[in-house]
Amino acid sequence: MEGSRFVIEASEAEFMARKSGLSLVQLLPTLVGPAQTLARPPISNYHVGAAGLGSDGRIFLGVNLEFSGVPLHHSVHAEQFLVTNLAAAGVPCLLAFAVSSAPCGHCRQFLQELRNASYLQICITDQQDTKPNSNFIPLSSILPNPFGPFDLLDNETPLLLEPHHNGLSLLSVSNTKIPNGITNLCNGNCRLLEKNEFELEIAALEAANNSHAPYSGCPSGVALRDSEGRIYKGSYMESAAYNPSLGPVQAAVVAFVAGGGGGYEGIVGECWWREKGRQ
Amino acid sequence: MEGSRFVIEASEAEFMARKSGLSLVQLLPTLVGPAQTLARPPISNYHVGAAGLGSDGRIFLGVNLEFSGVPLHHSVHAEQFLVTNLAAAGVPCLLAFAVSSAPCGHCRQFLQELRNASYLQICITDQQDTKPNSNFIPLSSILPNPFGPFDLLDNETPLLLEPHHNGLSLLSVSNTKIPNGITNLCNGNCRLLEKNEFELEIAALEAANNSHAPYSGCPSGVALRDSEGRIYKGSYMESAAYNPSLGPVQAAVVAFVAGGGGGYEGIVGECWWREKGRQ
Ligand SMILES: [Zn+2]
Ligand SMILES: [Zn+2]
Repeated sequence: MEGSRFVIEASEAEFMARKSGLSLVQLLPTLVGPAQTLARPPISNYHVGAAGLGSDGRIFLGVNLEFSGVPLHHSVHAEQFLVTNLAAAGVPCLLAFAVSSAPCGHCRQFLQELRNASYLQICITDQQDTKPNSNFIPLSSILPNPFGPFDLLDNETPLLLEPHHNGLSLLSVSNTKIPNGITNLCNGNCRLLEKNEFELEIAALEAANNSHAPYSGCPSGVALRDSEGRIYKGSYMESAAYNPSLGPVQAAVVAFVAGGGGGYEGIVGECWWREKGRQ
Repeated sequence: MEGSRFVIEASEAEFMARKSGLSLVQLLPTLVGPAQTLARPPISNYHVGAAGLGSDGRIFLGVNLEFSGVPLHHSVHAEQFLVTNLAAAGVPCLLAFAVSSAPCGHCRQFLQELRNASYLQICITDQQDTKPNSNFIPLSSILPNPFGPFDLLDNETPLLLEPHHNGLSLLSVSNTKIPNGITNLCNGNCRLLEKNEFELEIAALEAANNSHAPYSGCPSGVALRDSEGRIYKGSYMESAAYNPSLGPVQAAVVAFVAGGGGGYEGIVGECWWREKGRQ
């Protein structure tokens, strides 16, 4: 992820903030406009951008992705892109974020998966001026009376962004392959991996080990390879409300886009790793 | 749907209300417990029940459905079951509903698709006593600052539950078939229909004509046939937020369950009708 346009290093973020006379949190709304230009919404043409502050001082961007010819529910919203971006970087906490329009209910629910959900600070930039003192509101004010992980899990279970290791190994799981391109975003229909893709296989296993799947007990991960041999990993991330879960293919496509990938036809290899759990 | 345990006729609802000294709306919370017993959540074992009053005076029930061996995001929540139940009955407006636990963000977003969304009255029964005067709150109080159809559509476009006719005919579309059982809930991967299923084909076409797909321009419908020859229709219903859209297979499974269907192995025939739109 070195040099990604979707990650701003802590030192650079500090520099940008100081230069503008802003705090790091105040800087976030100013990054939403530039983020919007990176969105890929071929169906709606509705560009959404988000910028969030990680607990390590880095700033992460998120954009919405829509996939032509694929049912709408496989779309990735900017807020889910943002969280996926933090998860891939191993950042354990999202402190605050700014987003170009009001988060939809699906995203409000997905964000509920974070340990600090009710305190998470959100700035909706199209509903106010973009001055430094833009108004941040807590998630709990736009998702009052939430259903969430606390309704289904005990306190010891790691939540989203917290360290996971699902204990999968080359011996313990079955590996499968999905067809080329992103034509198969259905997250579940896959074919057997060919024998000569060991590096991709290990990457998919790592992604499955980082997967957040406490509700189904069925972690999974996907690794994509582009035509230049770069590998992009995506971990399945579940929601307590089930339907807002983000599939591993979508997560890997986020890594591809955040990592500077161009057209999806550049994705030439895929490996899917799935633990057969109780699901 | 005659005699469905999931639909209470207007005269019967009136009788039940009068007998208990309640209004029709006050009756709703008392029906949530019985509805919960009809839920089918093999993964979470979290039983959700809902009871809603249609503008025609009938009361409709909804329950959550989860599907073993299928990714979590194909689940149907009680609130979506309820709306699907009203849609199948051609009822244009859901006035109020009671539900056993707080609607998740995904459902709050899906409900935003209704014309009367902000005024829709909701009673969450596990957060209060179940006495007649249980507290109803508007959807807008649990999904403030919503993103919704008004952000993407003009005022003339019919919203969810309003009459739709997508103008599809036997000549205009391609028909496809999905595999037996509900193993394929991915809503999009399908195979060609065999030639001898004309009745099922017409039912799927009707379902596609009733589909609410203003965002993708790609309406679709599914018809299922059980071993006794009964046919169940399901129309694809889109959400402005895309991901909370309900696939036509799920909608048809709702019709199967609401229509008294037993185990899913009883589903022996399926037909999928999909208009190739701009999606
Ligand atoms: Zn969203
Ligand atoms: Zn729900």
